[in-house]
Amino acid sequence: MASDERESRTGHGEVVPLVHKVEVPPKRNVFQEIGSELWELFFHDAPVDQFKGQTKMKKGILSLKFIFPILDWIPKYNYKMLIADIISGCTIASLAIPQDLGYAKLAGVPPVNGLYSSFVPPLVYAVFGSSRDIAIGPVAVVSLLMGTLLKQEIDPIQDPVNYLKLAFTATFFCGIFQAGLGVFRLGFVTEFLSHAAIVGFMAGAAITIALQQLKGLLNITNFTTDTDFVSVMRSVFGHIDEWNWRSIVIGLAFLAFLITTKTMAKKKKKLFWVSAIAPLTSVGLSTLFVFLTRVDKHGVKIVGHIKKGINPVSIGDIFFSGSLAAAGAKVGLIAAIIALTEGVAIGRTFAALRDYHIDGNKEMIAFGVMNLCGSFTSCYVATGSFSRSAVNYQSGVCTAMSNVIMAIVVLVTLLVLTPLFKYTPNCILSAIIISAVLSLIDLRAALLIWKIDKFDFLACLGAFVGVFFVSVEIGLLIAVCISFVKILYNVTRPHTARLGNIPGTNVYRNVTQYPNATLVPGILAIRVDAAIYFSNSNYIHDKILHYLEEEMQRLSKSDGAPIKYLIVDLTPVTNIDTSGIIAFEELEKTLKRKNIQLAFANPGASVIIKLDDSKFLAHLGSEWVFFTVSEAIQVCTMLLNQSASEQV
Amino acid sequence: MASDERESRTGHGEVVPLVHKVEVPPKRNVFQEIGSELWELFFHDAPVDQFKGQTKMKKGILSLKFIFPILDWIPKYNYKMLIADIISGCTIASLAIPQDLGYAKLAGVPPVNGLYSSFVPPLVYAVFGSSRDIAIGPVAVVSLLMGTLLKQEIDPIQDPVNYLKLAFTATFFCGIFQAGLGVFRLGFVTEFLSHAAIVGFMAGAAITIALQQLKGLLNITNFTTDTDFVSVMRSVFGHIDEWNWRSIVIGLAFLAFLITTKTMAKKKKKLFWVSAIAPLTSVGLSTLFVFLTRVDKHGVKIVGHIKKGINPVSIGDIFFSGSLAAAGAKVGLIAAIIALTEGVAIGRTFAALRDYHIDGNKEMIAFGVMNLCGSFTSCYVATGSFSRSAVNYQSGVCTAMSNVIMAIVVLVTLLVLTPLFKYTPNCILSAIIISAVLSLIDLRAALLIWKIDKFDFLACLGAFVGVFFVSVEIGLLIAVCISFVKILYNVTRPHTARLGNIPGTNVYRNVTQYPNATLVPGILAIRVDAAIYFSNSNYIHDKILHYLEEEMQRLSKSDGAPIKYLIVDLTPVTNIDTSGIIAFEELEKTLKRKNIQLAFANPGASVIIKLDDSKFLAHLGSEWVFFTVSEAIQVCTMLLNQSASEQV
Repeated sequence: MASDERESRTGHGEVVPLVHKVEVPPKRNVFQEIGSELWELFFHDAPVDQFKGQTKMKKGILSLKFIFPILDWIPKYNYKMLIADIISGCTIASLAIPQDLGYAKLAGVPPVNGLYSSFVPPLVYAVFGSSRDIAIGPVAVVSLLMGTLLKQEIDPIQDPVNYLKLAFTATFFCGIFQAGLGVFRLGFVTEFLSHAAIVGFMAGAAITIALQQLKGLLNITNFTTDTDFVSVMRSVFGHIDEWNWRSIVIGLAFLAFLITTKTMAKKKKKLFWVSAIAPLTSVGLSTLFVFLTRVDKHGVKIVGHIKKGINPVSIGDIFFSGSLAAAGAKVGLIAAIIALTEGVAIGRTFAALRDYHIDGNKEMIAFGVMNLCGSFTSCYVATGSFSRSAVNYQSGVCTAMSNVIMAIVVLVTLLVLTPLFKYTPNCILSAIIISAVLSLIDLRAALLIWKIDKFDFLACLGAFVGVFFVSVEIGLLIAVCISFVKILYNVTRPHTARLGNIPGTNVYRNVTQYPNATLVPGILAIRVDAAIYFSNSNYIHDKILHYLEEEMQRLSKSDGAPIKYLIVDLTPVTNIDTSGIIAFEELEKTLKRKNIQLAFANPGASVIIKLDDSKFLAHLGSEWVFFTVSEAIQVCTMLLNQSASEQV
Repeated sequence: MASDERESRTGHGEVVPLVHKVEVPPKRNVFQEIGSELWELFFHDAPVDQFKGQTKMKKGILSLKFIFPILDWIPKYNYKMLIADIISGCTIASLAIPQDLGYAKLAGVPPVNGLYSSFVPPLVYAVFGSSRDIAIGPVAVVSLLMGTLLKQEIDPIQDPVNYLKLAFTATFFCGIFQAGLGVFRLGFVTEFLSHAAIVGFMAGAAITIALQQLKGLLNITNFTTDTDFVSVMRSVFGHIDEWNWRSIVIGLAFLAFLITTKTMAKKKKKLFWVSAIAPLTSVGLSTLFVFLTRVDKHGVKIVGHIKKGINPVSIGDIFFSGSLAAAGAKVGLIAAIIALTEGVAIGRTFAALRDYHIDGNKEMIAFGVMNLCGSFTSCYVATGSFSRSAVNYQSGVCTAMSNVIMAIVVLVTLLVLTPLFKYTPNCILSAIIISAVLSLIDLRAALLIWKIDKFDFLACLGAFVGVFFVSVEIGLLIAVCISFVKILYNVTRPHTARLGNIPGTNVYRNVTQYPNATLVPGILAIRVDAAIYFSNSNYIHDKILHYLEEEMQRLSKSDGAPIKYLIVDLTPVTNIDTSGIIAFEELEKTLKRKNIQLAFANPGASVIIKLDDSKFLAHLGSEWVFFTVSEAIQVCTMLLNQSASEQV
């Protein structure tokens, strides 16, 4: 084996030393060390790389483009792109307008504020945002979340004026937090929400929102303000006397229509425009129907009068101090995180589909500025809507100009068309929202999670059950907690493996994964598959000794040669801290008492530096640090044979 | 190279296939999968392994020994061991008695309760505990912590009766939590406190405790109840009129004596007994001095009357319900964690020195039962004392019997000797505590932390500053937060490396660590050094693309061959979740648009199963999953050469 290895190395019969040395690399000073870690945390995507080696003029232009991504595409904008953006902009506007009216109700604010929120924020996003495909405006989950949280502070029915002010306050703080996270490049906080937890949370929120729509669909007046399944069902079946058959018939008929067009569009991608214009068509038809039959006189609730005109300034309405400001800040923080998680994920998804890059932190600044501007102009929290972004993409959007087109359509609506919505029945808005939120339930993702990781599925289920049976906050809390528990579990119990030789190679692999891997007599090789820190150093220490004990028991039964060398493969160990080094020191002491020599294979740069700094390398002897497991085993086998021949 | 490799594999000229396959291992069902993870979390130390394949009788004996470790050593106990334990037991008793009186003051309870806490808990520990070297009793940091936290609920001067009851309540809940953590094998929660944070916290607490002793040393009556540096200094220099020179002279003289003996013992290990008996000698001498000179009539404060007799039953004093029970539970929980962290660490340290094993969870049960029994018998929280355990070890302790001997000495003291302490000056207790806590300041550890890891040092410093300038709770909070931030940082920003070939071998290594490693033209190999989860999947995806972009820019400048294959070495990737697979799917799509083929090398068992489950393996093609990086590169190079020759 040893000679084969030697041959394989030279290939020309040259004599090379058998053992490669692991050198201790030159040390970095304190600032370089801390600097590189901070750099990786905040600037791993190297946003300033493009500035290197440019002229001052070019740097200035690049900076402007960095801050205002609109400058990147406006110069290249042409007629063909405009046509595409007008088509997609009008399509998403037709979806947005009826959804806005419904989502505003969910958030507890007047319907017109939903329309306002589809006017200013998309314009601001078009200037600051980098995504070409995203459609900006109010979204279902954030609206539900804001409605639930704000109602705990102020009752929207008893004190609608202050409730609206509090909503603007929350939007203001949401903008501040979003922009702050982006400016300080803290975007990675959204990465602590696990995908599985989000899938469960979204599905739970979608069903909760759909259930809330039973109020409009059944025409109930005294509906519960709680959102859990039990309260809603009690409310629905406790007020059967309030049910209005006319409302139910209109609602269900159009719901069937909407779901049919959606299913059709899913089967034939080309027919997506049918499902895209279906909501506005439904609104038009049902409004006309109510206007002609005046069923509103028979109790069918209608939207009623919507104030005409552009967004009024609301900067004076925001609470900047006092307990309501604190309450707004709390709601704003939660809304900020959820809105960012949703918005940035949408941006990333479509950017990957069309092969362009999105800087998550820059997007957060765009969302932040947009919500700040929104809070000054009577809007509540807006973000990227998944369903509308998908339609935007399908209808051939080219640039963020489609958001501008949508804003213009909404503006025209606000200035001219609001009186037309007077006779729109509430049940039709409920039907539109139900059909919209159903797409948030991602059964396929849940199934995939179940297949791939059962613990992940538990997280998904936990978040779902929390939202469904308790409240949207509790669901979110469960999602966050489960995500953290999972991180912590993985940090405390890293994977370790006993290594065996794959016959006919110099490769050493996990003996449980490769049953044909053979152990080398007298030597135990163990691989540690994680950086060694305080959170796992005790476990790793115990686990290595446990492997050793197990092996020694097995050997004592089978009269095998006793273990004389324990090799720890440090390939995957990217770093080690003081606790880790202490654990190895203790391990070395314990092994020495058992007459077993400790050896390391392939330590990384930071690990070998720290072993050297702590003087443990000098104590162990640098001859016990090998370049590969294979070389370590060759040397140890040689030494074993030597001592055996000496004994003979 | 390829042919060399082939030769090296067979060594006998046999024809073997060049490429080893990575098989998808047989799948485990849901229960096996969840089961093995839970097992690793709770029972990684396999406490039941010893029961396997034993007779029922033997199993019964082993179970009894498992619950009562005393049964393990009592049968083998002999006269020689008894002598050794009597010597060490008396030595630690001589240390414990004066310390107990002082620590009780720190906790705000009467001095006699300190003595009680050195009687019952050591006896209980001797039955349930596994450590042979630990010395049980009240300790400085926990006493300070309890004093600080309990004073926030009840003023010990205005309402000493209820304060004492609350202390028993906290002790009761501390015992419950400790035993609970042990029974449910949740001991790993203590692993989330980083070593560095503990070093800083302990040093801060030691100095805080020493500063508190200025009250006794200077004889000040109106001393602040705050523990931060500024308040204490203000209290000290605001009451210069209360300073008593007699007290100061006695205190400083004995402090000098204590520190001299300690320094001497450090230099000559054989003289440790001098420093061990110095505290009791100081108490004796100073008491005699006060009794003879009656300086207490000149204002030197003395301990005064201590009630004679054994621990009274206090079970009726515990608040089992109401707001004080809740307050006690909160204090108990914090005290439980700190006491466990200290106690278990001491047990582990000495077990490693003498090569026996300690089951952390079993120790927690022992601590829990001991504090439960303590709370019923007028004790407050006891744990392992580091300084007394060290003396115990040095004076040749054999078994936990030395704790029993110490308890007997304390019992004799309680029954007979308490009147002797009447004239003991408070300043002497202060001097003893100052000299005792100084050993908690581990400058060498702090220096090592600084050398090894600058971030760790920041954690250490943060905890220290928190305790020193604010309070012991804030220091603890900072320690916990920093520990978590460090874990989360490592989870979000895992290490990645570009791999190059070490010339003359088939080994591929990080090109930054091994500058002589050479990149292979047309191929980029990247190693990911962590399990891929939701918390890092985006980062890893971006980082891989960033490496690719960097390399392509470099190549475009130097007219090198464009990258056609991207190999991801999955050796250290022990696991992957849905987010990780989605990230790879996106990566594959992006690469395909750039005409680059994605390939994997050496996926572990769980990773290959999940790639298969998610159908991504089928989509990618299993021929793109290689056994080693070396084989992947051989195949890709071959394909590159083929297509080059085809083009020619």
